[in-house]
Amino acid sequence: MIGKARELDAADPLAGFRERFAVPEGVIYLDGNSLGCLPKATPEALRRAVEREWGEGLIRSWNASEFGSGWFEMGTRVGAKIAPLIGAQPHEVIACDSTSVNLFKLIAAALQMRSGRQVVLSEPGNFPTDLYMIEGLERQGLAKRRLAPRSGIIDALDEDVALLVLTHAHYKTGELFDMAAITEAAHEVGALVLWDLSHSTGALPVDLNACHADFAVGCGYKYLNGGPGAPAFAFVAQRHLDELKQPLTGWFGHAAPFAFSDDYTGAAGIEQLQCGTQPILGLTALEVGVDLIAEIGVERLHQKSQALSEFFLEALREHGATLPLVSPPDSANRGSQLSFYHENAYAICQALIARGVIGDFRDPDILRLGFAPAYLRFEDIAEAARHLAEVLDGEEWRRAEFNERSAVT
Amino acid sequence: MIGKARELDAADPLAGFRERFAVPEGVIYLDGNSLGCLPKATPEALRRAVEREWGEGLIRSWNASEFGSGWFEMGTRVGAKIAPLIGAQPHEVIACDSTSVNLFKLIAAALQMRSGRQVVLSEPGNFPTDLYMIEGLERQGLAKRRLAPRSGIIDALDEDVALLVLTHAHYKTGELFDMAAITEAAHEVGALVLWDLSHSTGALPVDLNACHADFAVGCGYKYLNGGPGAPAFAFVAQRHLDELKQPLTGWFGHAAPFAFSDDYTGAAGIEQLQCGTQPILGLTALEVGVDLIAEIGVERLHQKSQALSEFFLEALREHGATLPLVSPPDSANRGSQLSFYHENAYAICQALIARGVIGDFRDPDILRLGFAPAYLRFEDIAEAARHLAEVLDGEEWRRAEFNERSAVT
Repeated sequence: MIGKARELDAADPLAGFRERFAVPEGVIYLDGNSLGCLPKATPEALRRAVEREWGEGLIRSWNASEFGSGWFEMGTRVGAKIAPLIGAQPHEVIACDSTSVNLFKLIAAALQMRSGRQVVLSEPGNFPTDLYMIEGLERQGLAKRRLAPRSGIIDALDEDVALLVLTHAHYKTGELFDMAAITEAAHEVGALVLWDLSHSTGALPVDLNACHADFAVGCGYKYLNGGPGAPAFAFVAQRHLDELKQPLTGWFGHAAPFAFSDDYTGAAGIEQLQCGTQPILGLTALEVGVDLIAEIGVERLHQKSQALSEFFLEALREHGATLPLVSPPDSANRGSQLSFYHENAYAICQALIARGVIGDFRDPDILRLGFAPAYLRFEDIAEAARHLAEVLDGEEWRRAEFNERSAVT
Repeated sequence: MIGKARELDAADPLAGFRERFAVPEGVIYLDGNSLGCLPKATPEALRRAVEREWGEGLIRSWNASEFGSGWFEMGTRVGAKIAPLIGAQPHEVIACDSTSVNLFKLIAAALQMRSGRQVVLSEPGNFPTDLYMIEGLERQGLAKRRLAPRSGIIDALDEDVALLVLTHAHYKTGELFDMAAITEAAHEVGALVLWDLSHSTGALPVDLNACHADFAVGCGYKYLNGGPGAPAFAFVAQRHLDELKQPLTGWFGHAAPFAFSDDYTGAAGIEQLQCGTQPILGLTALEVGVDLIAEIGVERLHQKSQALSEFFLEALREHGATLPLVSPPDSANRGSQLSFYHENAYAICQALIARGVIGDFRDPDILRLGFAPAYLRFEDIAEAARHLAEVLDGEEWRRAEFNERSAVT
């Protein structure tokens, strides 16, 4: 397979982009869907933000000046750059806070827009924080969480449902929802829809406005390569911006924060989603990652991502390795990952890590391998498949000891 | 005054710490109460976090490993370092999210603990985001905001009040509340108390537990020198940790986040305040700032801060400059700042900035000068007073044009 892998790498139009990332020596990194690799331009961008904008510019750097392009505008600027990756208009997206905090704002806003309805519908096994943030509003007595399995989601949509919260690409299996069909079904009963794009953005094309989506959130540290705990993003369809009311009414979302008024008046646009003072160092690193992904182009990334995962499956078959696939077999129906079932998935994951192949274990029995197309080579894929086949053949994974937290992020 | 200033600098036990900060050439920075200066150790700490922990360690850096001491523990580790600066126990403080987001969590938690009461009491003119976050809960129908002037705060405490939210050192005037007396009065009517320590922490001693405070929040980017938009901190008195329930129930606050359960169970300790994935780059920079302030010592910082502001007033008098002081005249009753009234405060502020003296204008007529004791010299103070006197004497401030946002952060 190595020969064929090298041929594919030689023909790969994205091959040159690997050099733009700091991929560690001796590591095959199949976890870019958890924390993306460091773009090589990030340290210099951060150095400049820290030494020049903060160190020399100090308070003056909030505004555009000789020291930089202005911290006040970073959230909307980075949001506008994310917008074309997800089929949104620039003024419909903002980079701010965390995915969880953004979920809270938008779930609460949707409940306010559908007063009289309290049900927020999702599926069991959705990424936990999506479910937990609904519970947070339940704690406040403002929401009722309803969970229905994905096969029954459309049937569970009734006139009580204020909002449907789903993740486009499932974090564990990679399975995709049909965003357009589900959104339409929800709208037919008068429900709003919030899509979590954490496992999609930067890996496959999303077209929020073509699907008439109402809200979306997504993560900055996975395929956008924004760094650990990077700011997240939030999308609100233009038609909702005027009536939007969310409860995290911090001063950075005020129409005139420096009037220091006692009373809150939200900004007219997407800026109203900013709660407190925004994390400038995190936004600086995120902007580099977003610029790089935009430069590569999400269509090309998607094509390569599909080719990588298909090649991995082919290589496994070649090695005679059999492992039940939990992800959809057709690459058109999954995100940029493959998940496999094994009752000893944890030990197998640890054995792979010992060989330099970093994937994820997902409790209790899933081995999850992510294929970040911006920096992975087909050669990496061939090698990873060989390692997995050898691990399955041999006894080394039986010796791995269980440690709850290692490799489980 | 320069001669006396140099004598004071020569005798200043903190003089050597100025070298630990990157204070720009030609700038007298009287705005460390808005954005603190860059510690010289920060760029290297960030470089290591980015290149080593993120770049090489990747996902492995969430746990303590060869790459670093573990991102998962950063919030509690930095919180524990902030604790002694504010009279708290290490396990009562966590660094996370923003001040605004932390206000929302704790105001909501207090309302839950005092069910049957809906009033959240504060004062008009409190820092806007404190007032706005109460309004956010009002938007949800869960709170009623009541404002009473500080002279009438104690009278306004009645049996309807669930929570009193006040800022220890006022952002505009620097006036201090008597935390112990006010907290006791609130407790007498069964109300809880939340102190905003944004303009206190790192500049003057605070003793939350001696005052029997219930909750507190504070800012990481002012006197703690954590950088623009640094993570904030939150304090919950140990006696409340067990019954605490806050609505921003993200996966980082879960008792077992990697069990990926559908249902939320909050962590037992202060970790339950973490909402989403935490900003690691911001926490890295904050930790450097906190370590440095802890090394200098908050008692010594307070003594120097009082001496600096007294010396500034003395220098102004020496120059025959008269400008009405809005801050309390006795340094025991104010934070580390002096605010003056002038109907042309904006223009004066701009004229000072043109001379390299960076202070703040606070709408509509306040000139606010902060005295961050970790890196200011008495010589800076003498020079700043001379510049202010010259600006007041001359005509240059009359020529400054109004620009709403410049210098107003």
